[in-house]
Parts: sequence; structure tokens; C-alpha cells
Amino acid sequence: MNKAILLIQCPDQKGIVAEVSRFLYAYHGNILEIDQHVDEELSLFFMRAAWELDSFSLQKDEIAQKFEEEVGQKFKMDFNVHFNFPRPKMAIFVSKLSHCLFDILARHHAGQLEVDIPLVVSNHQELKSVVEAFGIPYYYIPVSRDTKMEAEKQQLELMKKHDIDFVVLARYMQIISATFISKFPNRIINIHHSFLPAFVGAKPYHAAYERGVKIIGATAHYVTEELDAGPIIEQEVARVRHHNTIPDLVQIGQDVEKVVLSKAIKYHLDRKVLAFKNKTVIFY
Amino acid sequence: MNKAILLIQCPDQKGIVAEVSRFLYAYHGNILEIDQHVDEELSLFFMRAAWELDSFSLQKDEIAQKFEEEVGQKFKMDFNVHFNFPRPKMAIFVSKLSHCLFDILARHHAGQLEVDIPLVVSNHQELKSVVEAFGIPYYYIPVSRDTKMEAEKQQLELMKKHDIDFVVLARYMQIISATFISKFPNRIINIHHSFLPAFVGAKPYHAAYERGVKIIGATAHYVTEELDAGPIIEQEVARVRHHNTIPDLVQIGQDVEKVVLSKAIKYHLDRKVLAFKNKTVIFY
Amino acid sequence: MNKAILLIQCPDQKGIVAEVSRFLYAYHGNILEIDQHVDEELSLFFMRAAWELDSFSLQKDEIAQKFEEEVGQKFKMDFNVHFNFPRPKMAIFVSKLSHCLFDILARHHAGQLEVDIPLVVSNHQELKSVVEAFGIPYYYIPVSRDTKMEAEKQQLELMKKHDIDFVVLARYMQIISATFISKFPNRIINIHHSFLPAFVGAKPYHAAYERGVKIIGATAHYVTEELDAGPIIEQEVARVRHHNTIPDLVQIGQDVEKVVLSKAIKYHLDRKVLAFKNKTVIFY
Amino acid sequence: MNKAILLIQCPDQKGIVAEVSRFLYAYHGNILEIDQHVDEELSLFFMRAAWELDSFSLQKDEIAQKFEEEVGQKFKMDFNVHFNFPRPKMAIFVSKLSHCLFDILARHHAGQLEVDIPLVVSNHQELKSVVEAFGIPYYYIPVSRDTKMEAEKQQLELMKKHDIDFVVLARYMQIISATFISKFPNRIINIHHSFLPAFVGAKPYHAAYERGVKIIGATAHYVTEELDAGPIIEQEVARVRHHNTIPDLVQIGQDVEKVVLSKAIKYHLDRKVLAFKNKTVIFY
Repeated sequence: MNKAILLIQCPDQKGIVAEVSRFLYAYHGNILEIDQHVDEELSLFFMRAAWELDSFSLQKDEIAQKFEEEVGQKFKMDFNVHFNFPRPKMAIFVSKLSHCLFDILARHHAGQLEVDIPLVVSNHQELKSVVEAFGIPYYYIPVSRDTKMEAEKQQLELMKKHDIDFVVLARYMQIISATFISKFPNRIINIHHSFLPAFVGAKPYHAAYERGVKIIGATAHYVTEELDAGPIIEQEVARVRHHNTIPDLVQIGQDVEKVVLSKAIKYHLDRKVLAFKNKTVIFY
Repeated sequence: MNKAILLIQCPDQKGIVAEVSRFLYAYHGNILEIDQHVDEELSLFFMRAAWELDSFSLQKDEIAQKFEEEVGQKFKMDFNVHFNFPRPKMAIFVSKLSHCLFDILARHHAGQLEVDIPLVVSNHQELKSVVEAFGIPYYYIPVSRDTKMEAEKQQLELMKKHDIDFVVLARYMQIISATFISKFPNRIINIHHSFLPAFVGAKPYHAAYERGVKIIGATAHYVTEELDAGPIIEQEVARVRHHNTIPDLVQIGQDVEKVVLSKAIKYHLDRKVLAFKNKTVIFY
Repeated sequence: MNKAILLIQCPDQKGIVAEVSRFLYAYHGNILEIDQHVDEELSLFFMRAAWELDSFSLQKDEIAQKFEEEVGQKFKMDFNVHFNFPRPKMAIFVSKLSHCLFDILARHHAGQLEVDIPLVVSNHQELKSVVEAFGIPYYYIPVSRDTKMEAEKQQLELMKKHDIDFVVLARYMQIISATFISKFPNRIINIHHSFLPAFVGAKPYHAAYERGVKIIGATAHYVTEELDAGPIIEQEVARVRHHNTIPDLVQIGQDVEKVVLSKAIKYHLDRKVLAFKNKTVIFY
Repeated sequence: MNKAILLIQCPDQKGIVAEVSRFLYAYHGNILEIDQHVDEELSLFFMRAAWELDSFSLQKDEIAQKFEEEVGQKFKMDFNVHFNFPRPKMAIFVSKLSHCLFDILARHHAGQLEVDIPLVVSNHQELKSVVEAFGIPYYYIPVSRDTKMEAEKQQLELMKKHDIDFVVLARYMQIISATFISKFPNRIINIHHSFLPAFVGAKPYHAAYERGVKIIGATAHYVTEELDAGPIIEQEVARVRHHNTIPDLVQIGQDVEKVVLSKAIKYHLDRKVLAFKNKTVIFY
């Protein structure tokens, strides 16, 4: 089904839902999903509306302008119109660990992710054969302290060439520069292998072991300049016990990472995420 | 904050959200929450809208009629208007086990439940002193095969006298008759101590032990004539292991029962539940 | 590390732990893990002991006999000695759905499963290319009502030829015959896509949708002659809501199936499972 | 059933299990539970053994010495012998919030906790009537900056007078001094309302809200001098969403706190916890 999705942020006011739904009805849109949220503290209004395009009497490319004129201006809305076609393009960045990459490729292969994956980028060569077995081009771009800037330049050229909409860091063990991040605001999804804000930074499973926690976790978040501090999209945990060694934590944790990252990708693809400050509204 | 809540079921059609939100806006209602759901299989539309009453220009007692005239008729809606005042009245039925009863009374005492509890009814005397310590009248109505009909008659008189809105069976170990149920359609909440539809009927923890399951659960549901088959409101589970005996299962399960029942009561009180067939839509 | 694992079942008596640990110490075994369980109802004793082989003064092939003579006879033990080398051989049976298969292959590829996978057997051809990309032979053995017996004969010959220790049914949508089962008692692991004993048999996600449950699940169990009634090894659940369609349940459930099946395989491989009646003791 | 429980810590060596179980068997002890753990990193051995006392041929008060002579010395063991009678004495400290207190009292009333509760101590008067309704003395000891030392002195006298074995801080909102802690090493259980090490210190629900986490939690730990850094006994989490306000988090979190604290108390009472460094071994 061809559908459009409207994501809105604006100051909270009366009558927004009435106006938005009137607009959609006026042009014969059949509403599939409608969700709203008010952040009382900030007096901010958030809304998501999805509707069928087939019966809609506006053309795809005139919706945004009409909506701006008829509704957006009045309420000082910050909004975006998305469509479920053509499918967005997602780049995957990976280092040596395969679990998240495999999981994404397997879901993609099974038809669960409505996305194109034009390429995988890695600073290592280990996962090349697997990626290519799935028929996806693999770009090996090594990164060292000296070549980091040059490597990012190459990466950005690849993103541009392949018209990439968003980037997934599937356990990519390199810091992304502010320049790169600025090209993809709230469009780089990272999986961090701890329950943030606990265990920020490197080796969180080691830190969890040292602290003797009884539950470990993983966090998917949008990447911002501050390390591991971007808006959290999804988190999940798993129970561990005293007899679990660090390698056990790694293995138990990887199962959590996979699930969390794939859920975050799904929410992002379904345009269910609205980010503001260091938070997210997720209409699932 | 004084608020009104509208719960709607009707055949799915275009324009419902637009009309409902237009109605609320026209009378200066500030929408607090709005949720909708379409059951595609049955072509049924469900909606919940909550708004502030203070600025609303219709009187409390004219809202339903105006809504019927302006919106309801047009869409053939089955709807109800609820208010968060006066507080609804809840009766608790209990037998000998105290865990669910205590949990409800403790939450009520801590101000978590926006409800009045005019009475507790029991077929046993064990819990009388505790209930009275919380300042709530306790009615002991013994039930035997021979006195069952008479006992229900007494119970119904108490419900009427205290103007009870809904009934919570907090581990009340008696079957409720069809007559009683018919007075409270989708307004009797039972907690069943298994993960329905597994282990319907008596002694589910024994049955779970015999089957060797690795997870046990509890289910809160509206009571219908068919035993343990009414619309499910909430379910939760807990992990068990081979070394857990039946008394262990009972104890682990009781913690689950408490949480599940209190969530179901909360959803019901917040008018977040729409029941249809043997299912529920829950806008949490 | 080379290690031995002893699994014991016997009537409950005093002194068993003392005797078993004395035996291991006498031959210089360094105990790594020791667990015991008493089923009070049945007066049955269960034990698992794992120890390092390197310092052990008995040869691998004389352990069982010595133990029988010195300890087993006295307590009428039913026991087995296992070793973590050579690695056991696991056959995977699959139909068309790839999620469990992929998950196992990805874990195997990442070195998480200490097992050899000499072959995958399927009654369909869809997953051939993926399996072969992982370098594992794929045997396509179609099954129809008429050819079922012949197909099982072929399967059993393959099992024999490849010296298979145990079989994993990774969503293999065919009933296994009593003859086949008898060759692998408590050595065929099936994943059933419901929270048993709820929704036995075909199409459990459809049944869960119809019943309006709030949580769905998956169950890994040993296959016995009675359908979906064998000893449960592991179960897990996931929360669903009213807006989840049957395809949603399938997708949410598949994530649970993968995790449950891989845990069951891991417990089985680590010799942590003792099955009796329709139950399991699992020393994790 | 009268039983004894032995808790052991010592350097890891061969033969410990054999010697301990030989000792128990020699004096006709019927082992009920036996668990061991080796911390490979620290080469530390931990063990818990529980056995029936009725058939045991040593007197209660000679067990420790005999064990020291026959087993403990040889392996340089740090050990304790506990009995399930007389019941240990637990003091509860509380401030204004009732949820954890109620939960403990309700469990105690239902016979789930094998403990005596000689008194509740509070720096506020709010919960007096409830505690006294359960027939337990309530000591109101206000605490201000100036009276803190004097208040602790009174508290310690009460602990001594009532022969208190361990203390539960059921949301007691005062820092405990090093002096007090030194009297109850690993015998003061605190419930912290976050998932440690995230959100140490005051107002963790506010901090969780600000950070936009998707899961909140609670942690029960032994109190040490360093704030919220003692050995963790139990943790649990609950899912939250963008629409949950801080009062929502408080309410959702309180349900988690209750369950976590009561589990920690249960583990402590069953002598299942061995603490070392800032960690715990828990043989559940």
C-alpha cells in the first residue's frame, strides 16, 4: 500500500489535531494511524499521521507545500512528509564483529526491512565474504589516526554517490567526526553495548563485570557529537549471574544488541521516531 | 484536572478523526490524549479522546447528547462519555488469599488509584481485620452449593446499595453466575493465576508444575459466562526453574498476579480499555 | 580446555555427592562445576559434574567403567560421561522459513557453538543457496504423504552416514515418525512457535491473535511421540498489543523463536539438560 | 524442617567439594542443596551447602568447631554456619514512602518471610498507624543535621536491645554513617531507585526522565561507605515511554523497587548470598 507519513513538532496549541485531520479528510486521505504527544514541561506538541495515498487527491510532490500553507504556517510547525516509496537507502558501517550485521542482513533477506542496502563500509576485511554472499558491495576503508580524515572523505563520497538516507553503525568501532554527523542529523543509528547512561565509552562488558551488575543491556541511539549521549531510540536488558564470565557477558549481550538495533532500525524506517533535545518520542 | 474521556466503537469510515476533533475544538476542548485503532479484519474503528473540561463550553450533562447529534449518528457510533469525577466505586471480592487484596489496598492508601472502595466482600472471614484496619467495611457472605443463589442476591443488593461501578475479583474462588455477570458487562475484572489460554480452570500452578514449563504467568480479564475466556486486559510472566516446587510457583506467581491485576484496574479506571468479542483494545 | 561431564539420575539417597566428589578427587580431577537437584515428589536425584581432564589420572575410555564399579552400581545410577571433544555433530532440518536457520549458522560462523554441522536437510529448495554460502551441504528431500516413509529412510541414512549426535528442527514443518524419534531419544530439539501448553499444533500465531493474548511466546522441547508434549528445554515471551496484526505476531515471534532455540541448543551442547518424564532439569 | 547452611569462601584448591561433602556424610547429614562457584580471576572458591539437621549426629553448637578442625583449617576457609531457627531478626528503616514497607509487611503477614520484625524505625511519623496495625512497634527518631549522631546512637541501642541481625532500608532517605555500617557489615540492605551504576545519588527518576531512557530500574545492594557502590544483590527493570511523566516513572519504578527489595531480603534470609569486594555470589 502506498502511504504518506507526516511528522510534526510545534508549540502546543488547541486545535492542531482538528486542523491536521481536517486537511487529510479534505483531500480524501484515509487515516491509517494517528498519534500525538504533548511534552508538558516544554509545551511542545508532537504528532504523527499516516494515510493511504491511493485515494488522496493531492500529488505526492504538492502535499508538503499545501500543508504548509493550510496548516503548518498557522501553528508554526516544523514538519516532514515521508512516503513509503521509493524505499530509503541505508548504509551499514561495521568493524570485525558480525552479529549485528548478520542479523540485519538476515532480516533484509527475509523481507522484513523495507529498505535498500546499497553498501557496507568497514575498516576491516573480515566480513567481506559474508556481505558479498548476500549480494551487497563491501567497501574496505581502513582507518588509522593519520588517515581518519581521508577515510571519512571517502565514506562521505560513497554516501553521496549511493544517495544514502541514513547510516547504521553495526558495532563500528570508530568515533564519527562532527563533520560526518552534521551531514546526517538524527540519521546515524549506533548500537552501544551497555544500558546507557551506565558504562559509557569503551569496554562496557568489562566494566559491568567489574561492578557486579545483575543485568546488562544495550542501547540504540542517534549519534550526536557528545559520545554515547544522543537521543535514545531503544534499550533492552538481559539477566546475568555471578558465574558469567566476561566472554559470557559479551555473548549474552550480543543477543540483546541485535534485537535492540533491529528494533531501532524498524522504528526509524517506519518514521515512528521524533527526536528533540537528547530524547525521542516513539509512536509504536 | 477535570477531564472527560470519550470511548468510541463504530464501523470504519473516512473522516471520523476529523469530525471528532472538530467537535472537541468547536467547544474549546483542549485534547490531552487521542488514540485510534482500526481492526482491519472486522472493519471496526476504535477511538479514545481525553480533554480538559475546564475550558469546555458544553456542560458535563449535555456532552453526550450533543455529540450524538453532531457526530455519533452520522457514523453509527457506539460511544460513552466518562469523567474523572466523581471517582468511580469499586467493590473487591476476595476469599482467603491476601496478596492481591493487600496490594490494591496499599496502592489505594498511597493515593495511586483514583477510585473509591466502599466495601470488600468475602466468602471467608480471614481477611476481615486487615480490611478494617484500612477503614473499609468488610461483608462476610459465606457461599455453599445450597446458598449460592441467596448469597449472590445479597451481593447484588450490596452492589446496588453502594452504587458500585465495577467489581474486582482479587482471587475470589467462586464462579460468578450469568445473572451477576449480566449486571456488570465488561465491568468485572478477574485475575487468573495462569498465562491464559494455558491452564484454564482450577489449580493452574499444579498443572504448570506437572507440565514442566519454564515460565509461569497471570492474566487479568473481564469475566464472561465462559470460564476464563473473557477479554484479556493484561498478562505477565515470571521465569521458574526445575528446583521450584509448587509452593515456590505459588509465591513467584503471586507477585505476578498482583502486578497484572493492578495494571488492569489502572487501565480500566483510566478508561483505556475498549472490549469487543473476546478481545480488548488498550490505549496505554 | 579438555573436560569431562558426568550426568547422573538415580533414586535419592544420602552420600551421593560425597561419593561422586571423592571419586573425582581420587583421580585428580579438578571440579569445574557441580550441581545437584532432588525431585522430592519422585525421590529422584539428579547431578551434573564437570571437571578438567588434563590432570585426571584415568583415560577417557576407562572413566565410565571405573565410575560404574566404584560409584554407579552402589547407588543404582543411570549415568553418562560426555566430553567436550571431539565436537558433537548436529543436523539441522528446515522447511522454508529462514530465521532460525540463519541465526544458528551466524552463531556457528561466529564461533559461539561448539558443534559440527555436517548437513542441513530440507523438504524445500528455498534455503539451499544460503546454506551453501556457509559451506554446509544441503540435502533436498521432498516429503509428500506418499513419500514420507521413503523420505525418512533417506534422512536416517544421512544421519547414520554423517554420524549425527542430535537433530535440530529449525521450523521443519513435518511430523517426525515414532521410528525416527526412537533413534534419537531426547536428542531431537524442536522449536514450537507458541508458549506451550497454549496453542498446541498448527498456526499458533493465528490462534493467539484470535484469543487476543497480550503476550506471545516460543518453546524449545525434545520431540516425543505426542505432538508438542515433550520435555520443555526453554521458553521465552514477547509483548504484543491490539494493533499487532498476524504478520506482526509472526515477526515478533520469530525473534523469540531464534533466541529460545539457540539457548536450547547451547544447553544441550553444554550437557546441562537432564530429561525425565515430560520435564527437564537444566543446570545453567 | 530444621536445617543448617554452610557458607564458605577460600582460595581455590582441588578436593574442597569432596572434603565438605565427606564431612556432612560422615555425620549423617542429608544434603538438601549444594552449590559452588570459582572466581577464576581471583582464584577464589565459594560454596554453599544446606542439610537436614534432624538426622545429623553433631549438636548445633559443635558443628562450627568440628568443621574448622576437620575441613576449614586445611583449606584456609572463611566460613559461617547458619541455621533456619531461631528466626533471624530484621529491623526496617523507612521515611515517608510506604510502598516497600507495605510490601514487606504484607509478605510477612502472609507467612512468606521466615523472619521476625521486632521494630520499624523512621525519621517521620507518617507510617506509624499502618505499622502498628500490623502489630509491630514503630520508633520515631527524627534526624536533622545537628541530631544525626545522637539519632544513630539511639538507633544502635534499639538494634542492640532487639538483638537485630540485619537492617533493611526500605526507602530510608538518610545517609548511614560509617560507624553504623561497621556494626552490620554486609547486613544492611538498601533499595536504590535506579539501575546502578546509572543514576547514583538523589532523584534518579528525575535524572532518568531528563536522559530520556526507555527502561528504568531498581537495585538492592549491601550498604558500604561509598554511596550506592556496595555489592549488588538484585536488580530489575521496567519499560517506560515518552509519554510517561516523572510521577509515572515514580509509580512504575515503585513496583520494581518492591519486587527487587523483597527478592534481596529473601536471598539474604535463605543465606544464598556471599559478598566479596563489591560483588555478590548468589546461589538461587
